[in-house]
Amino acid sequence: MRTRATAYPIWNRFTPKAGSRLSMREQLVRFFRQGVADGTLQAGIRLPASRVLAAELKLSRITVSGAYEQLIAEGFLEARQGSGTYVAAHAAGPARAPAPGGSASIASAASARNTAPRPPAAAPASTPGSQRARCLRGPDSMSMAQAAWPLTPGLPALDAFPYALWGRLDGRFWRRHPAPDLSYGEPQGLLALRVALAEYLGAARGVVCRPHNIIIAPGAQAAIAIAALALTDAGDSVWVENPGYDAAYRSLVLSGVTAVGIRVDDAGLDVEDGRRRAPEARLALVSPSHQYPLGVTMSLERRLALLQWADEANAFILEDDYDSEFRHEGAPTPALKALDARNGRVIYIGTLSKLLAPGLRLGYLVVPDELVEVLQTVRNGTDHRVPASIQATAAEFIGNGHLGAHIRRTRALYGERRAALLEALREAGEARFSVTHAATGLHLLAHLPGRVDDLALAAAARAHRIGVTPLSAYRVGPGASASRGLLMGFGNTRPEAIRAAVRTLCGLYPDAG
Amino acid sequence: MRTRATAYPIWNRFTPKAGSRLSMREQLVRFFRQGVADGTLQAGIRLPASRVLAAELKLSRITVSGAYEQLIAEGFLEARQGSGTYVAAHAAGPARAPAPGGSASIASAASARNTAPRPPAAAPASTPGSQRARCLRGPDSMSMAQAAWPLTPGLPALDAFPYALWGRLDGRFWRRHPAPDLSYGEPQGLLALRVALAEYLGAARGVVCRPHNIIIAPGAQAAIAIAALALTDAGDSVWVENPGYDAAYRSLVLSGVTAVGIRVDDAGLDVEDGRRRAPEARLALVSPSHQYPLGVTMSLERRLALLQWADEANAFILEDDYDSEFRHEGAPTPALKALDARNGRVIYIGTLSKLLAPGLRLGYLVVPDELVEVLQTVRNGTDHRVPASIQATAAEFIGNGHLGAHIRRTRALYGERRAALLEALREAGEARFSVTHAATGLHLLAHLPGRVDDLALAAAARAHRIGVTPLSAYRVGPGASASRGLLMGFGNTRPEAIRAAVRTLCGLYPDAG
Repeated sequence: MRTRATAYPIWNRFTPKAGSRLSMREQLVRFFRQGVADGTLQAGIRLPASRVLAAELKLSRITVSGAYEQLIAEGFLEARQGSGTYVAAHAAGPARAPAPGGSASIASAASARNTAPRPPAAAPASTPGSQRARCLRGPDSMSMAQAAWPLTPGLPALDAFPYALWGRLDGRFWRRHPAPDLSYGEPQGLLALRVALAEYLGAARGVVCRPHNIIIAPGAQAAIAIAALALTDAGDSVWVENPGYDAAYRSLVLSGVTAVGIRVDDAGLDVEDGRRRAPEARLALVSPSHQYPLGVTMSLERRLALLQWADEANAFILEDDYDSEFRHEGAPTPALKALDARNGRVIYIGTLSKLLAPGLRLGYLVVPDELVEVLQTVRNGTDHRVPASIQATAAEFIGNGHLGAHIRRTRALYGERRAALLEALREAGEARFSVTHAATGLHLLAHLPGRVDDLALAAAARAHRIGVTPLSAYRVGPGASASRGLLMGFGNTRPEAIRAAVRTLCGLYPDAG
Repeated sequence: MRTRATAYPIWNRFTPKAGSRLSMREQLVRFFRQGVADGTLQAGIRLPASRVLAAELKLSRITVSGAYEQLIAEGFLEARQGSGTYVAAHAAGPARAPAPGGSASIASAASARNTAPRPPAAAPASTPGSQRARCLRGPDSMSMAQAAWPLTPGLPALDAFPYALWGRLDGRFWRRHPAPDLSYGEPQGLLALRVALAEYLGAARGVVCRPHNIIIAPGAQAAIAIAALALTDAGDSVWVENPGYDAAYRSLVLSGVTAVGIRVDDAGLDVEDGRRRAPEARLALVSPSHQYPLGVTMSLERRLALLQWADEANAFILEDDYDSEFRHEGAPTPALKALDARNGRVIYIGTLSKLLAPGLRLGYLVVPDELVEVLQTVRNGTDHRVPASIQATAAEFIGNGHLGAHIRRTRALYGERRAALLEALREAGEARFSVTHAATGLHLLAHLPGRVDDLALAAAARAHRIGVTPLSAYRVGPGASASRGLLMGFGNTRPEAIRAAVRTLCGLYPDAG
């Protein structure tokens, strides 16, 4: 039997139940038994030493080793001399079918973010589920982001999240017995939150809007899904950046549109390429401030060309502005939305996932007057509502100036982490990792020489629990650029861990051996 | 200028900011100014007397009257001698276009839940937005449920929500600095919550499942949207109950399927009618424990016939089990899912909206093994993820037995409220309101004589801030039954308010004057 580390240390999720009549040992036994039955703890996974787990869970070592012994006696675990405790082979949970298709399996091993912007894998017709759902097979990117792995893109500094303050504001919400808020909520989301966001957006992003123009959603991906359903019909074409953001692509596929990959160069989305490939598109999804994944900023010329196309084609633009608050070099780039005061062509999408944490599930759309009603209607039709406590706490947090303070504090932190990563990559040599666009955000793209297979290198890295993802995985369709690279997130990784991870990456490099 | 009460008392949402440098009066001024700019406070709305508002917001009367005076000086409000303070005519926010089509306007006046199960209103082609979104025009039901109005259906006892306990558990979550939980979360939702739900479902609903079979979603409507995308393709037929649950209908329309209304009688959904109308349907959405809105329980014979059809047609059944924990008379009805241990035809949908509160946005699906992967993939594609704090707190709440205790406590409460409503309706006379199926849940249906227009009566009631909704609004298509009735929720209304509301309804009855 193969022995391996688990990508998902579920034991950190064990929470002793204070009011329970079960002993702590029995609670731990049930927890592990459940994990095995559940398939979360698969055969061959090595458990931490009882001493380590006891320290981590703040339990006595006797409790943990007692639980291990019982689980070994029950056949769920097995002890191997001098090596440790493992999930037993025959105790495995439900078999998980591998993703269909050879390339999907490579991708699955290679990366947690490597899935969507590829042509749909051909699933066998016997697989249950709709055609549209089968187009999404393969591991899901965001759900598999590993918070504990260094260099995972897409995560802010979870170690710097203001736990105490947020918990205090949240506690205030519950203490005021907010009965009316615990109904289904206002049709566009909590007014107090929309007021706070409107103030913030004007000051921070040059986006002048009223609370009436804001619609709350549980994240940027949800916001994209809502906009696609509200502004396109099934079969319509939508411009997406190529390479582009895979989670957005998944939303679009489910909405039934045809996502057409448009070229991206150093000035951002190539509007002429879009006019050639899909002149009749109804929608263009762009990340002008910090293109995902290439990192480029869209030029003013291109912005104006994009707005002009939208006007001519009677189409709309979705601006995904996910992390532009963190501008490390050069002048701040205003939002595309700020150029569109008159015509109402741009729907701006913001999120707190990168400013605070994805686990809050809080994003929003800023919508021209005449589109408010239709987007609100769709939001409530798809049930993309956000819990009252999250909205109210965020309203307090933003409205009282804590968001601004948090951004200032983390900007300094990200400056250090970014500098550590750039320095480590420089030491590794530009022939291995060359960085071109790293002025903004929480990740950068390290280009690789053409001979290096980024899928394979990312797979090797992930086997060593390093969260980098391969550029090749973000391609839309087969005709895309052949450039290779690794996406490296520095938001949630401390400098020393960044340096260690880059050293490991160098050891895994094809020319290292 | 027309003078009217607002349906939406936004001033209850005013929350003083503790850390703010603004005076309380200035905060109140800004809040109202924003409401006017926002369009939430429309011209002609009468504000509460300063004395009343001061009491409600726990502010001094001087603060409130000072704020009113300033707003009057600024032109946002106007005082009318002997009559009160109103939003000024010229201060109005953005004009809201009325819903297109005559019938939609009637519906809009008549009811907050009167929208979806009607043929799509023909919107003018110039209205922005997709065809599929325009099919949903009209007021959205759940978003407009008025927690403060007596007899509003769809709401549990928000006055009995365990605020202190929930706040304490939630505080514990933030205090343990749950960094890994604040990433994108596990692909099916938090394991601890799924473990707790699996235990609960086995004990409370006879649904035996493993945590592996549970997928967390932000509510039952979201769960229906996920299942529809995962199990059907655009253009497929889906059976829905006629009359049926309007929010579900909205989800289905957006997923691109054809929702076919199937007859419901005293034994529940008429399977033979389904076989006639849409034998090739891929999915049937049913509420067997407590049909919404008629209240009937599906007979065992019909349950078996439905399962047999699904087997023959290779179709799936969505069981919406939203409030069956509250069985007031007769033997408890097991879930349909409990009959389907072998074949895996039933996807069970549960929610905490009726057990605790809709504002938590917490529901889930229980899914046969072979469908887990595709439903999980769709959930993450549509970004129907749930915030970490909500999931973790619910896991604690359910796992430590608090949910069971809360259900026992509220069952007694609902028993009293239900008895008060039945008694008040009996006093009003069976010739006016006749009740047939009221054994389960938090609302009942009062049938009206055929000559009474339920849309008009509900409209009159809502003008008096009584939240009843008309049965006619839940019809799917024009061919449905002609019976008339009012849905009356007793979950969130105290006995004395129930009695007063029924007295008011009697006064509004066509034969009253």
